[in-house]
Amino acid sequence: MKSRGVAILGSTGSIGTTALRVISRQRERFSITALTANTNAALLAEQQDEFRPGYVGLVDSSETARDDWRSGAACLVEASTLSGTDIVLNAIVGAAGLDATLAALRAGKRVALANKETLVVAGALAEEACREGGGEIVPVDSEHSAVLQCIASRPKSDVRRIILTASGGPFRGWSEDQLASATLEDALRHPTWTMGRKITIDSATLANKALEVIEAHFLFGIPYDRIDVVVHPQSIVHSFVEFVDGSVVAQMSLPTMELPVLYALTHPERLPDDGVAPFDPVSASPFTFEPVDMARFPALQMGIDAGRRGGAAPAVYNAANEQAVALFLAGKIRFGDIPRAIETALESLGDLPGKTREQLLAADAEARQMVMELF
Amino acid sequence: MKSRGVAILGSTGSIGTTALRVISRQRERFSITALTANTNAALLAEQQDEFRPGYVGLVDSSETARDDWRSGAACLVEASTLSGTDIVLNAIVGAAGLDATLAALRAGKRVALANKETLVVAGALAEEACREGGGEIVPVDSEHSAVLQCIASRPKSDVRRIILTASGGPFRGWSEDQLASATLEDALRHPTWTMGRKITIDSATLANKALEVIEAHFLFGIPYDRIDVVVHPQSIVHSFVEFVDGSVVAQMSLPTMELPVLYALTHPERLPDDGVAPFDPVSASPFTFEPVDMARFPALQMGIDAGRRGGAAPAVYNAANEQAVALFLAGKIRFGDIPRAIETALESLGDLPGKTREQLLAADAEARQMVMELF
Repeated sequence: MKSRGVAILGSTGSIGTTALRVISRQRERFSITALTANTNAALLAEQQDEFRPGYVGLVDSSETARDDWRSGAACLVEASTLSGTDIVLNAIVGAAGLDATLAALRAGKRVALANKETLVVAGALAEEACREGGGEIVPVDSEHSAVLQCIASRPKSDVRRIILTASGGPFRGWSEDQLASATLEDALRHPTWTMGRKITIDSATLANKALEVIEAHFLFGIPYDRIDVVVHPQSIVHSFVEFVDGSVVAQMSLPTMELPVLYALTHPERLPDDGVAPFDPVSASPFTFEPVDMARFPALQMGIDAGRRGGAAPAVYNAANEQAVALFLAGKIRFGDIPRAIETALESLGDLPGKTREQLLAADAEARQMVMELF
Repeated sequence: MKSRGVAILGSTGSIGTTALRVISRQRERFSITALTANTNAALLAEQQDEFRPGYVGLVDSSETARDDWRSGAACLVEASTLSGTDIVLNAIVGAAGLDATLAALRAGKRVALANKETLVVAGALAEEACREGGGEIVPVDSEHSAVLQCIASRPKSDVRRIILTASGGPFRGWSEDQLASATLEDALRHPTWTMGRKITIDSATLANKALEVIEAHFLFGIPYDRIDVVVHPQSIVHSFVEFVDGSVVAQMSLPTMELPVLYALTHPERLPDDGVAPFDPVSASPFTFEPVDMARFPALQMGIDAGRRGGAAPAVYNAANEQAVALFLAGKIRFGDIPRAIETALESLGDLPGKTREQLLAADAEARQMVMELF
């Protein structure tokens, strides 16, 4: 494996810092060509000093940037299309990651995609960009990385069903009354994964799992009725793939993002790496599996339905969710308001056209506006 | 996939009848070219009428054979080397399957190997036969089928460790006193798998798992110190493969041999098949894993040690075990006598030379003789 150039979008976030930790163990194989951050200029400067990329970008132009940094949102697409970059790790949060993903794919890059919203908002456009430019998407989400590892080199036609696992989040088993009074602190207390704040809230509402179902649909070309979700509180089994002969293959590891990040860089090869603690089935035992409580976590079914509906519906679902989560994180709405906001947006805007990037971004903006006005 | 000719050695046994059930669902893909049985002439005749193979053999020449049957042990090698045969399913019990496996491999056939004793007695000779004749071994054991499915097309160098699962057998958790008075009936009452009598006893002593460790060593070219065993009472996870990056992949299904038999025929492809009930992680939950109680089941460690020792030691281990199991099945010795017989044989004969087929068969015969004289 020759050394490959990696651009990291969102290098100061949870996935970004994980990726830099992985790459610092694998410096013979990977070099950093670009780093971009949203607002954390101080950490970005440290990362620049350590990894010495040729390109550094800071999205938020109100923050103080070093002289050699690019500033403003345009840096994302620039960083994604540099000629020395082989892999773009898109670890941006939310629909803001869309243009960078599309640009990288059109430029023939591998996109290591942690930004699942890209595929939710514009899965068909991403597929088109891959065809046009020869790029490819390799998932960073642990569930989709698991599916990819289970399918390995087999043809898609061998796959009968995908079963995504969900930890169930911090509110697994909570009653409706308890959920109604859940605090931000409660929602941020994820039982098994340490992640960014937005995805942690999405894991509490199970909106995250809906986004993952849509992501799996596009990544693996599997119809929605052959993607199931099962709750697995231990977060050891990251997903199952059932094949046409009835055999089931699953990927597992302790819950760390280091492994899926590394695998997204090396796929289909594997690199020796000690970042993941050795797996011990005895100490990880038991593995339990439960059905999802769809009634108590309505954001999941709404998201899957939006995926089936197609058009702008997934973009509306995602935008309404992003806006509602931002309000919840800001202490302005209650936990139960998040699915209500999504439902309202989908009822009004779910049938908007969603063929082009412009239509999708318009639907996204309308959904955000509607949620803002709702509270 | 073109239609492939399959010879089944041991067609009236548990694996043989399972294979015919599988093939009867997949008649477009597979035809039966040969059937052989040890003694069950009545069932063999029924199978001949249903599947109409060109060759039928009955090993036991004291049984009444039809006019068009071949009789005597030579039928095994004949059936394995027919020109119309692509795949030889070797479902013979014990070291008696050795010559047929070697002949099939030398004739360039795929050997779907349920007869693990072949690899235990003469793993190096089987490897040599593959090189000479271009044949290949595809395992039928559920554990090794699982490992093969997990490795998929990846290079062996990607594999860090194999973890074979063991149900623990009918005596899991029994005290030493209980074990001492275990009856034949107790030992034949396997908790999860329906199998032939010999392998069922091997599963009770855990000798079966030792044979599987040796088999895995030869099949996958993995050193013994990177093959572990863990008890998994539910028999859902059929084995784990840990890769060099720390990722673990496991194969699972309800405990039926139909799947590994089918996969051994189709590998690396998969055929749509409804023989395996759909996997439901919720109803299969929980999956538990326990360490093996090596002290209570000494046949396991003795077998692994024999594998490491090499030479004729694995053949002596296997022969002593076969003979002791036969005596136990005949009601002539007690359960605890089985590991004692193995231990005695290994102490006296473990250092015999084991390079050639003749040396291995001589060691096999000596070990059987010694066990017979012991009781």
